[in-house]
Amino acid sequence: MKKVNVVKIGGNVIDNPWELKRFLKDFSELEGPKILVHGGGREATRMSKLIGIETTMIEGRRVTDRETLDVVTMVYAGLINKKIVAELQSNGCNTVGLTGADGRLIPATRRPANPIDYGYVGDINPEEVNATFLEMLMEKGYVPVCCAICYDQNGGLLNCNADSVAGAVAIGMSTLYPTRLTYCFEKAGVMRDIEDEKTVIPEITSATFQKLREEEVIAAGMIPKLQNALECVAKGVAEVRICKAGAITGEGGTRVSL
Amino acid sequence: MKKVNVVKIGGNVIDNPWELKRFLKDFSELEGPKILVHGGGREATRMSKLIGIETTMIEGRRVTDRETLDVVTMVYAGLINKKIVAELQSNGCNTVGLTGADGRLIPATRRPANPIDYGYVGDINPEEVNATFLEMLMEKGYVPVCCAICYDQNGGLLNCNADSVAGAVAIGMSTLYPTRLTYCFEKAGVMRDIEDEKTVIPEITSATFQKLREEEVIAAGMIPKLQNALECVAKGVAEVRICKAGAITGEGGTRVSL
Repeated sequence: MKKVNVVKIGGNVIDNPWELKRFLKDFSELEGPKILVHGGGREATRMSKLIGIETTMIEGRRVTDRETLDVVTMVYAGLINKKIVAELQSNGCNTVGLTGADGRLIPATRRPANPIDYGYVGDINPEEVNATFLEMLMEKGYVPVCCAICYDQNGGLLNCNADSVAGAVAIGMSTLYPTRLTYCFEKAGVMRDIEDEKTVIPEITSATFQKLREEEVIAAGMIPKLQNALECVAKGVAEVRICKAGAITGEGGTRVSL
Repeated sequence: MKKVNVVKIGGNVIDNPWELKRFLKDFSELEGPKILVHGGGREATRMSKLIGIETTMIEGRRVTDRETLDVVTMVYAGLINKKIVAELQSNGCNTVGLTGADGRLIPATRRPANPIDYGYVGDINPEEVNATFLEMLMEKGYVPVCCAICYDQNGGLLNCNADSVAGAVAIGMSTLYPTRLTYCFEKAGVMRDIEDEKTVIPEITSATFQKLREEEVIAAGMIPKLQNALECVAKGVAEVRICKAGAITGEGGTRVSL
Protein backbone atom coordinates (compact mmCIF):
# COMPACT_ATOMS: atom_id res chain seq x y z
CA MET A 1 0.00 0.00 0.00
CA LYS A 2 1.35 3.40 -0.82
CA LYS A 3 2.55 5.66 1.92
CA VAL A 4 1.76 9.37 2.06
CA ASN A 5 4.50 11.80 3.08
CA VAL A 6 3.37 14.95 4.89
CA VAL A 7 6.25 17.41 5.29
CA LYS A 8 6.11 20.63 7.28
CA ILE A 9 8.57 23.49 6.82
CA GLY A 10 8.72 26.59 8.94
CA GLY A 11 9.88 30.16 8.64
CA ASN A 12 13.56 29.32 9.08
CA VAL A 13 13.63 27.60 5.68
CA ILE A 14 11.23 30.00 3.97
CA ASP A 15 13.20 33.08 5.01
CA ASN A 16 16.31 31.83 3.21
CA PRO A 17 15.73 31.75 -0.58
CA TRP A 18 18.72 29.51 -1.25
CA GLU A 19 17.78 27.03 1.48
CA LEU A 20 14.14 27.05 0.35
CA LYS A 21 15.17 26.27 -3.22
CA ARG A 22 17.33 23.38 -2.06
CA PHE A 23 14.59 22.06 0.21
CA LEU A 24 12.01 22.20 -2.60
CA LYS A 25 14.39 20.26 -4.84
CA ASP A 26 14.64 17.54 -2.17
CA PHE A 27 10.88 17.58 -1.64
CA SER A 28 10.35 17.11 -5.40
CA GLU A 29 12.47 13.98 -5.23
CA LEU A 30 10.42 12.30 -2.50
CA GLU A 31 8.67 9.36 -4.10
CA GLY A 32 4.96 8.63 -3.93
CA PRO A 33 2.05 10.82 -2.86
CA LYS A 34 3.08 13.80 -0.71
CA ILE A 35 1.81 16.98 0.86
CA LEU A 36 3.74 20.07 1.87
CA VAL A 37 2.59 22.29 4.75
CA HIS A 38 4.34 25.60 5.28
CA GLY A 39 4.45 28.41 7.81
CA GLY A 40 6.04 31.74 7.04
CA GLY A 41 6.17 34.03 10.06
CA ARG A 42 8.94 36.52 9.41
CA GLU A 43 7.63 37.71 6.04
CA ALA A 44 4.25 38.53 7.62
CA THR A 45 5.99 40.62 10.28
CA ARG A 46 8.03 42.43 7.62
CA MET A 47 4.92 43.13 5.55
CA SER A 48 2.95 44.31 8.61
CA LYS A 49 5.74 46.77 9.34
CA LEU A 50 5.77 48.06 5.76
CA ILE A 51 2.01 48.60 5.90
CA GLY A 52 2.25 50.20 9.32
CA ILE A 53 0.58 47.53 11.43
CA GLU A 54 2.15 46.70 14.76
CA THR A 55 2.86 43.02 15.38
CA THR A 56 1.96 41.68 18.82
CA MET A 57 3.18 38.26 19.86
CA ILE A 58 2.04 36.54 23.06
CA GLU A 59 3.91 33.37 24.03
CA GLY A 60 5.31 33.14 20.50
CA ARG A 61 1.91 33.37 18.83
CA ARG A 62 0.75 36.22 16.63
CA VAL A 63 -2.22 38.27 17.85
CA THR A 64 -4.37 38.48 14.72
CA ASP A 65 -6.70 41.46 14.50
CA ARG A 66 -8.74 42.10 11.32
CA GLU A 67 -5.89 43.94 9.56
CA THR A 68 -3.31 41.33 10.57
CA LEU A 69 -5.60 38.59 9.26
CA ASP A 70 -5.53 40.35 5.88
CA VAL A 71 -1.73 40.53 6.01
CA VAL A 72 -1.23 36.85 6.89
CA THR A 73 -3.77 35.84 4.25
CA MET A 74 -1.86 37.87 1.65
CA VAL A 75 1.55 36.64 2.72
CA TYR A 76 0.87 32.97 3.53
CA ALA A 77 -1.87 32.13 1.00
CA GLY A 78 -0.65 34.55 -1.68
CA LEU A 79 3.02 35.37 -1.73
CA ILE A 80 4.66 32.38 -0.02
CA ASN A 81 2.24 29.67 -1.12
CA LYS A 82 2.29 30.67 -4.77
CA LYS A 83 6.06 31.13 -4.91
CA ILE A 84 6.46 27.60 -3.53
CA VAL A 85 3.84 26.27 -5.99
CA ALA A 86 5.62 27.88 -8.97
CA GLU A 87 9.08 26.76 -7.87
CA LEU A 88 7.90 23.16 -7.38
CA GLN A 89 6.24 23.25 -10.81
CA SER A 90 9.65 24.00 -12.30
CA ASN A 91 10.93 20.84 -10.55
CA GLY A 92 8.26 18.81 -12.34
CA CYS A 93 6.09 18.57 -9.23
CA ASN A 94 2.50 19.43 -10.19
CA THR A 95 1.45 21.34 -7.09
CA VAL A 96 -1.86 22.83 -6.01
CA GLY A 97 -1.67 25.54 -3.33
CA LEU A 98 -4.40 25.48 -0.71
CA THR A 99 -5.75 27.16 2.38
CA GLY A 100 -8.12 25.41 4.74
CA ALA A 101 -11.02 27.23 3.05
CA ASP A 102 -10.27 25.68 -0.37
CA GLY A 103 -12.30 22.52 -0.76
CA ARG A 104 -13.39 23.07 2.86
CA LEU A 105 -10.10 21.37 3.60
CA ILE A 106 -9.53 22.49 7.19
CA PRO A 107 -12.49 23.83 9.17
CA ALA A 108 -11.32 25.64 12.30
CA THR A 109 -12.93 27.19 15.36
CA ARG A 110 -12.02 30.60 16.65
CA ARG A 111 -10.09 30.32 19.87
CA PRO A 112 -12.04 31.66 22.89
CA ALA A 113 -11.03 35.18 23.96
CA ASN A 114 -10.31 33.88 27.46
CA PRO A 115 -7.71 33.72 28.97
CA ILE A 116 -5.89 35.45 26.05
CA ASP A 117 -7.64 37.07 23.09
CA TYR A 118 -5.57 36.15 20.05
CA GLY A 119 -8.18 37.59 17.67
CA TYR A 120 -8.75 35.69 14.40
CA VAL A 121 -6.83 32.63 15.47
CA GLY A 122 -8.27 29.16 15.07
CA ASP A 123 -7.94 25.68 16.46
CA ILE A 124 -8.45 22.61 14.35
CA ASN A 125 -10.27 19.37 14.98
CA PRO A 126 -8.25 16.83 12.92
CA GLU A 127 -11.37 14.69 12.43
CA GLU A 128 -12.88 17.46 10.31
CA VAL A 129 -10.07 17.61 7.73
CA ASN A 130 -11.40 16.89 4.21
CA ALA A 131 -8.99 14.03 3.52
CA THR A 132 -10.93 12.82 0.47
CA PHE A 133 -10.23 16.15 -1.25
CA LEU A 134 -6.49 15.62 -0.78
CA GLU A 135 -6.88 11.99 -1.85
CA MET A 136 -8.61 13.06 -5.09
CA LEU A 137 -5.75 15.45 -5.92
CA MET A 138 -3.02 12.93 -5.09
CA GLU A 139 -4.72 10.09 -6.98
CA LYS A 140 -4.37 12.24 -10.10
CA GLY A 141 -0.76 13.09 -9.37
CA TYR A 142 -1.24 16.57 -7.93
CA VAL A 143 0.80 17.60 -4.90
CA PRO A 144 -1.08 19.71 -2.33
CA VAL A 145 0.80 22.64 -0.75
CA CYS A 146 -1.05 23.87 2.33
CA CYS A 147 -0.64 27.07 4.30
CA ALA A 148 -2.00 27.67 7.78
CA ILE A 149 -4.94 29.93 6.88
CA CYS A 150 -8.06 27.95 7.73
CA TYR A 151 -11.82 28.25 7.33
CA ASP A 152 -13.95 29.64 10.17
CA GLN A 153 -17.04 27.74 8.88
CA ASN A 154 -18.92 31.02 8.59
CA GLY A 155 -17.59 32.81 5.52
CA GLY A 156 -14.31 33.92 7.08
CA LEU A 157 -10.71 32.87 7.60
CA LEU A 158 -8.64 32.11 10.68
CA ASN A 159 -4.90 32.16 11.26
CA CYS A 160 -3.80 28.74 12.56
CA ASN A 161 -0.57 27.21 13.73
CA ALA A 162 1.29 25.51 10.87
CA ASP A 163 2.50 22.62 13.08
CA SER A 164 -1.14 21.96 14.02
CA VAL A 165 -2.20 22.14 10.35
CA ALA A 166 0.48 19.60 9.42
CA GLY A 167 -0.59 17.35 12.28
CA ALA A 168 -4.28 17.58 11.36
CA VAL A 169 -3.55 16.87 7.68
CA ALA A 170 -1.41 13.84 8.63
CA ILE A 171 -4.09 12.52 11.02
CA GLY A 172 -6.73 13.04 8.32
CA MET A 173 -4.65 11.25 5.67
CA SER A 174 -3.88 8.37 8.01
CA THR A 175 -7.58 7.40 7.88
CA LEU A 176 -6.95 6.58 4.19
CA TYR A 177 -3.26 5.63 3.85
CA PRO A 178 -0.29 4.85 6.06
CA THR A 179 1.09 8.33 6.64
CA ARG A 180 4.52 9.63 7.55
CA LEU A 181 4.81 13.14 9.01
CA THR A 182 8.13 14.99 8.97
CA TYR A 183 8.55 18.23 10.88
CA CYS A 184 11.48 20.16 9.44
CA PHE A 185 13.26 22.30 11.85
CA GLU A 186 16.48 24.34 12.15
CA LYS A 187 18.21 21.64 14.24
CA ALA A 188 19.16 18.05 13.42
CA GLY A 189 16.41 16.79 15.75
CA VAL A 190 15.62 17.02 19.46
CA MET A 191 19.02 17.27 21.13
CA ARG A 192 20.21 16.65 24.68
CA ASP A 193 22.77 19.43 24.23
CA ILE A 194 21.49 22.15 21.91
CA GLU A 195 25.09 22.96 20.87
CA ASP A 196 26.01 19.41 19.88
CA GLU A 197 24.39 17.68 16.92
CA LYS A 198 25.82 14.37 18.08
CA THR A 199 23.37 14.42 20.99
CA VAL A 200 20.26 14.03 18.85
CA ILE A 201 17.77 11.79 20.68
CA PRO A 202 16.88 9.11 18.10
CA GLU A 203 13.48 8.26 19.58
CA ILE A 204 11.03 9.90 21.95
CA THR A 205 7.92 8.16 23.30
CA SER A 206 5.15 9.49 25.59
CA ALA A 207 7.03 7.95 28.53
CA THR A 208 10.47 9.35 27.65
CA PHE A 209 8.87 12.73 26.80
CA GLN A 210 7.65 13.07 30.40
CA LYS A 211 11.06 12.13 31.69
CA LEU A 212 12.88 14.55 29.36
CA ARG A 213 10.54 17.35 30.43
CA GLU A 214 11.22 16.66 34.08
CA GLU A 215 14.95 16.71 33.36
CA GLU A 216 14.37 20.00 31.45
CA VAL A 217 16.10 18.57 28.37
CA ILE A 218 12.90 19.52 26.51
CA ALA A 219 11.67 23.03 27.15
CA ALA A 220 10.04 26.09 25.58
CA GLY A 221 9.04 25.73 21.89
CA MET A 222 9.89 22.04 21.75
CA ILE A 223 7.12 21.17 24.21
CA PRO A 224 4.11 22.02 21.96
CA LYS A 225 5.97 20.57 18.94
CA LEU A 226 6.42 17.24 20.68
CA GLN A 227 2.89 17.29 22.11
CA ASN A 228 1.68 17.76 18.54
CA ALA A 229 3.86 14.89 17.32
CA LEU A 230 2.67 12.58 20.12
CA GLU A 231 -0.98 13.45 19.39
CA CYS A 232 -0.35 12.44 15.75
CA VAL A 233 1.04 9.01 16.59
CA ALA A 234 -1.73 8.47 19.15
CA LYS A 235 -4.29 9.28 16.43
CA GLY A 236 -2.94 6.90 13.81
CA VAL A 237 -0.05 8.58 11.97
CA ALA A 238 2.34 5.71 11.22
CA GLU A 239 5.57 7.64 11.67
CA VAL A 240 6.50 11.09 12.95
CA ARG A 241 9.98 12.49 12.62
CA ILE A 242 11.58 15.80 13.58
CA CYS A 243 14.68 16.63 11.54
CA LYS A 244 16.56 19.23 9.50
CA ALA A 245 15.05 20.48 6.25
CA GLY A 246 18.04 18.95 4.46
CA ALA A 247 17.28 15.46 5.83
CA ILE A 248 13.81 14.76 4.39
CA THR A 249 15.00 12.31 1.75
CA GLY A 250 17.20 10.43 4.22
CA GLU A 251 16.98 9.12 7.73
CA GLY A 252 18.12 10.68 11.01
CA GLY A 253 16.56 13.15 13.37
CA THR A 254 14.20 12.27 16.19
CA ARG A 255 11.49 9.71 15.70
CA VAL A 256 8.39 10.18 17.85
CA SER A 257 6.56 6.99 18.83
CA LEU A 258 3.79 5.87 21.17
CA MET B 1 -25.08 17.20 -21.71
CA LYS B 2 -24.25 19.55 -18.89
CA LYS B 3 -23.22 23.09 -19.60
CA VAL B 4 -20.36 24.82 -17.81
CA ASN B 5 -20.77 28.43 -16.71
CA VAL B 6 -17.63 30.57 -16.65
CA VAL B 7 -18.28 33.94 -15.01
CA LYS B 8 -15.82 36.80 -14.85
CA ILE B 9 -16.08 39.68 -12.38
CA GLY B 10 -13.89 42.72 -12.33
CA GLY B 11 -12.71 45.31 -9.85
CA ASN B 12 -15.94 47.29 -9.91
CA VAL B 13 -17.76 44.44 -8.11
CA ILE B 14 -14.83 43.43 -5.91
CA ASP B 15 -14.27 46.97 -4.63
CA ASN B 16 -17.80 47.13 -3.22
CA PRO B 17 -18.20 44.63 -0.33
CA TRP B 18 -22.00 44.77 -0.41
CA GLU B 19 -22.18 44.29 -4.16
CA LEU B 20 -19.61 41.48 -4.02
CA LYS B 21 -21.63 39.66 -1.35
CA ARG B 22 -24.80 39.96 -3.45
CA PHE B 23 -23.00 38.80 -6.58
CA LEU B 24 -21.52 35.77 -4.79
CA LYS B 25 -25.02 34.85 -3.56
CA ASP B 26 -26.25 34.93 -7.17
CA PHE B 27 -23.22 32.98 -8.36
CA SER B 28 -23.89 30.30 -5.72
CA GLU B 29 -27.37 29.87 -7.14
CA LEU B 30 -26.21 29.19 -10.70
CA GLU B 31 -26.98 25.57 -11.41
CA GLY B 32 -24.53 22.99 -12.73
CA PRO B 33 -20.74 23.11 -12.99
CA LYS B 34 -19.29 26.61 -12.85
CA ILE B 35 -16.06 28.56 -12.61
CA LEU B 36 -15.47 32.06 -11.30
CA VAL B 37 -12.65 34.24 -12.64
CA HIS B 38 -11.89 37.49 -10.85
CA GLY B 39 -9.75 40.57 -11.31
CA GLY B 40 -9.13 43.03 -8.50
CA GLY B 41 -7.21 46.09 -9.64
CA ARG B 42 -8.00 48.81 -7.16
CA GLU B 43 -6.99 46.85 -4.05
CA ALA B 44 -3.55 46.16 -5.58
CA THR B 45 -3.07 49.89 -6.19
CA ARG B 46 -4.13 50.69 -2.61
CA MET B 47 -1.75 48.05 -1.23
CA SER B 48 1.14 49.25 -3.44
CA LYS B 49 0.62 52.75 -2.07
CA LEU B 50 0.61 51.52 1.54
CA ILE B 51 3.85 49.64 0.93
CA GLY B 52 5.36 52.62 -0.89
CA ILE B 53 5.49 51.23 -4.42
CA GLU B 54 4.49 53.55 -7.22
CA THR B 55 1.86 52.20 -9.61
CA THR B 56 2.48 52.81 -13.32
CA MET B 57 -0.31 52.14 -15.80
CA ILE B 58 0.21 52.23 -19.57
CA GLU B 59 -2.93 52.07 -21.70
CA GLY B 60 -4.91 50.83 -18.70
CA ARG B 61 -2.48 48.01 -17.95
CA ARG B 62 -0.34 47.72 -14.84
CA VAL B 63 3.43 47.78 -15.32
CA THR B 64 4.55 44.89 -13.14
CA ASP B 65 8.10 45.06 -11.81
CA ARG B 66 9.37 42.44 -9.33
CA GLU B 67 7.91 44.24 -6.29
CA THR B 68 4.57 44.85 -7.99
CA LEU B 69 4.40 41.17 -8.95
CA ASP B 70 4.70 40.36 -5.24
CA VAL B 71 1.91 42.82 -4.44
CA VAL B 72 -0.51 41.50 -7.09
CA THR B 73 0.29 37.92 -6.05
CA MET B 74 -0.52 38.79 -2.44
CA VAL B 75 -3.65 40.74 -3.27
CA TYR B 76 -5.17 38.66 -6.09
CA ALA B 77 -4.10 35.12 -5.10
CA GLY B 78 -4.15 35.76 -1.35
CA LEU B 79 -6.51 38.42 -0.07
CA ILE B 80 -9.20 38.63 -2.76
CA ASN B 81 -9.19 35.01 -3.90
CA LYS B 82 -9.40 33.59 -0.38
CA LYS B 83 -12.07 36.05 0.77
CA ILE B 84 -14.20 35.01 -2.20
CA VAL B 85 -13.52 31.33 -1.52
CA ALA B 86 -14.54 31.66 2.15
CA GLU B 87 -17.65 33.71 1.36
CA LEU B 88 -18.78 31.19 -1.28
CA GLN B 89 -18.19 28.35 1.18
CA SER B 90 -20.68 30.01 3.51
CA ASN B 91 -23.20 29.93 0.63
CA GLY B 92 -22.75 26.16 0.38
CA CYS B 93 -20.57 26.45 -2.71
CA ASN B 94 -17.48 24.26 -2.23
CA THR B 95 -14.86 26.44 -3.88
CA VAL B 96 -11.18 25.91 -4.62
CA GLY B 97 -9.13 29.06 -5.24
CA LEU B 98 -6.50 28.84 -7.95
CA THR B 99 -3.80 30.71 -9.78
CA GLY B 100 -2.53 29.59 -13.16
CA ALA B 101 0.44 27.95 -11.40
CA ASP B 102 -1.78 25.61 -9.36
CA GLY B 103 -2.20 22.35 -11.24
CA ARG B 104 -0.27 24.03 -14.07
CA LEU B 105 -3.68 25.45 -14.90
CA ILE B 106 -2.67 28.41 -17.05
CA PRO B 107 0.82 28.51 -18.53
CA ALA B 108 1.67 31.99 -19.79
CA THR B 109 4.49 33.60 -21.75
CA ARG B 110 6.12 36.82 -20.68
CA ARG B 111 5.15 39.61 -23.03
CA PRO B 112 8.10 40.89 -25.11
CA ALA B 113 9.67 44.10 -23.80
CA ASN B 114 9.07 45.73 -27.21
CA PRO B 115 7.27 48.03 -27.94
CA ILE B 116 6.28 48.51 -24.25
CA ASP B 117 7.99 46.75 -21.35
CA TYR B 118 5.19 45.78 -18.96
CA GLY B 119 7.56 43.72 -16.81
CA TYR B 120 6.19 40.47 -15.37
CA VAL B 121 3.08 40.46 -17.52
CA GLY B 122 2.04 37.38 -19.42
CA ASP B 123 -0.02 36.36 -22.41
CA ILE B 124 -1.93 33.10 -22.52
CA ASN B 125 -2.33 30.49 -25.20
CA PRO B 126 -5.84 29.11 -24.52
CA GLU B 127 -4.85 25.75 -25.98
CA GLU B 128 -2.45 25.24 -23.06
CA VAL B 129 -5.09 25.59 -20.30
CA ASN B 130 -5.24 22.43 -18.15
CA ALA B 131 -8.96 21.85 -18.67
CA THR B 132 -8.85 18.29 -17.31
CA PHE B 133 -7.75 19.68 -13.93
CA LEU B 134 -10.85 21.88 -13.82
CA GLU B 135 -12.96 18.97 -15.04
CA MET B 136 -11.66 16.74 -12.22
CA LEU B 137 -12.60 19.37 -9.62
CA MET B 138 -16.05 20.03 -11.10
CA GLU B 139 -16.86 16.32 -11.51
CA LYS B 140 -16.50 16.02 -7.74
CA GLY B 141 -18.61 19.12 -7.09
CA TYR B 142 -15.83 21.62 -6.42
CA VAL B 143 -16.14 25.12 -7.85
CA PRO B 144 -12.87 26.62 -9.16
CA VAL B 145 -12.23 30.31 -8.40
CA CYS B 146 -9.40 31.61 -10.57
CA CYS B 147 -7.39 34.79 -10.31
CA ALA B 148 -5.23 36.26 -13.06
CA ILE B 149 -1.81 35.29 -11.69
CA CYS B 150 -0.42 32.75 -14.15
CA TYR B 151 2.57 30.43 -14.45
CA ASP B 152 5.65 31.53 -16.42
CA GLN B 153 6.63 27.86 -17.08
CA ASN B 154 9.98 28.45 -15.44
CA GLY B 155 9.37 28.58 -11.68
CA GLY B 156 7.84 32.05 -11.64
CA LEU B 157 4.55 33.91 -11.87
CA LEU B 158 3.16 36.42 -14.34
CA ASN B 159 0.42 39.02 -13.98
CA CYS B 160 -2.19 38.44 -16.70
CA ASN B 161 -5.35 40.15 -17.81
CA ALA B 162 -8.41 38.71 -16.05
CA ASP B 163 -10.60 38.99 -19.17
CA SER B 164 -8.00 36.94 -21.07
CA VAL B 165 -7.85 34.37 -18.25
CA ALA B 166 -11.64 34.01 -18.32
CA GLY B 167 -11.57 33.65 -22.11
CA ALA B 168 -8.78 31.06 -22.03
CA VAL B 169 -10.55 29.06 -19.31
CA ALA B 170 -13.81 29.13 -21.29
CA ILE B 171 -12.04 28.08 -24.51
CA GLY B 172 -10.27 25.29 -22.61
CA MET B 173 -13.51 24.05 -21.04
CA SER B 174 -15.34 24.15 -24.35
CA THR B 175 -13.11 21.30 -25.58
CA LEU B 176 -14.87 19.15 -22.93
CA TYR B 177 -18.36 20.64 -22.41
CA PRO B 178 -20.64 23.21 -23.98
CA THR B 179 -19.47 26.37 -22.22
CA ARG B 180 -21.14 29.67 -21.51
CA LEU B 181 -18.94 32.67 -20.67
CA THR B 182 -20.39 35.71 -18.91
CA TYR B 183 -18.36 38.89 -18.56
CA CYS B 184 -19.76 40.97 -15.72
CA PHE B 185 -19.35 44.59 -16.12
CA GLU B 186 -20.53 47.86 -14.52
CA LYS B 187 -23.04 48.54 -17.33
CA ALA B 188 -26.10 46.58 -18.47
CA GLY B 189 -24.24 45.49 -21.63
CA VAL B 190 -22.70 47.20 -24.64
CA MET B 191 -24.80 50.33 -25.13
CA ARG B 192 -25.33 52.66 -28.06
CA ASP B 193 -25.73 55.54 -25.62
CA ILE B 194 -23.60 55.03 -22.53
CA GLU B 195 -26.09 57.07 -20.48
CA ASP B 196 -29.15 55.07 -21.46
CA GLU B 197 -29.59 51.43 -20.39
CA LYS B 198 -32.42 51.05 -22.86
CA THR B 199 -29.89 51.24 -25.69
CA VAL B 200 -28.20 47.93 -24.84
CA ILE B 201 -27.23 46.17 -28.07
CA PRO B 202 -28.70 42.67 -27.68
CA GLU B 203 -26.28 40.96 -30.04
CA ILE B 204 -22.89 41.73 -31.57
CA THR B 205 -21.25 39.61 -34.27
CA SER B 206 -17.85 39.97 -35.96
CA ALA B 207 -19.59 41.86 -38.76
CA THR B 208 -21.57 44.24 -36.57
CA PHE B 209 -18.48 44.74 -34.35
CA GLN B 210 -16.58 46.19 -37.32
CA LYS B 211 -19.49 48.41 -38.15
CA LEU B 212 -19.94 49.61 -34.54
CA ARG B 213 -16.22 50.39 -34.35
CA GLU B 214 -16.37 52.43 -37.52
CA GLU B 215 -19.37 54.31 -36.13
CA GLU B 216 -17.37 54.79 -32.89
CA VAL B 217 -20.20 53.31 -30.85
CA ILE B 218 -17.57 50.90 -29.49
CA ALA B 219 -14.39 52.54 -28.28
CA ALA B 220 -11.64 52.42 -25.66
CA GLY B 221 -11.87 49.58 -23.12
CA MET B 222 -14.78 47.90 -24.90
CA ILE B 223 -12.62 47.09 -27.93
CA PRO B 224 -10.30 44.52 -26.28
CA LYS B 225 -13.24 43.14 -24.27
CA LEU B 226 -15.20 42.46 -27.44
CA GLN B 227 -12.16 41.16 -29.30
CA ASN B 228 -11.71 38.72 -26.44
CA ALA B 229 -15.37 37.71 -26.59
CA LEU B 230 -15.25 37.23 -30.36
CA GLU B 231 -12.08 35.11 -30.07
CA CYS B 232 -13.94 32.90 -27.57
CA VAL B 233 -16.90 32.25 -29.86
CA ALA B 234 -14.55 31.68 -32.79
CA LYS B 235 -12.67 29.09 -30.70
CA GLY B 236 -15.69 27.10 -29.64
CA VAL B 237 -17.31 28.77 -26.62
CA ALA B 238 -21.04 28.15 -27.10
CA GLU B 239 -22.27 31.44 -25.70
CA VAL B 240 -20.64 34.69 -24.62
CA ARG B 241 -22.55 37.41 -22.83
CA ILE B 242 -21.58 40.82 -21.44
CA CYS B 243 -23.90 42.02 -18.69
CA LYS B 244 -24.24 43.52 -15.21
CA ALA B 245 -23.00 41.52 -12.22
CA GLY B 246 -26.60 41.44 -10.98
CA ALA B 247 -27.83 39.75 -14.18
CA ILE B 248 -25.89 36.47 -14.15
CA THR B 249 -28.83 34.31 -13.14
CA GLY B 250 -31.16 35.92 -15.71
CA GLU B 251 -31.01 36.99 -19.31
CA GLY B 252 -30.24 40.38 -20.85
CA GLY B 253 -27.04 42.18 -21.68
CA THR B 254 -25.16 41.82 -24.94
CA ARG B 255 -24.71 38.44 -26.54
CA VAL B 256 -21.58 38.03 -28.66
CA SER B 257 -21.87 35.63 -31.62
CA LEU B 258 -19.92 34.60 -34.70
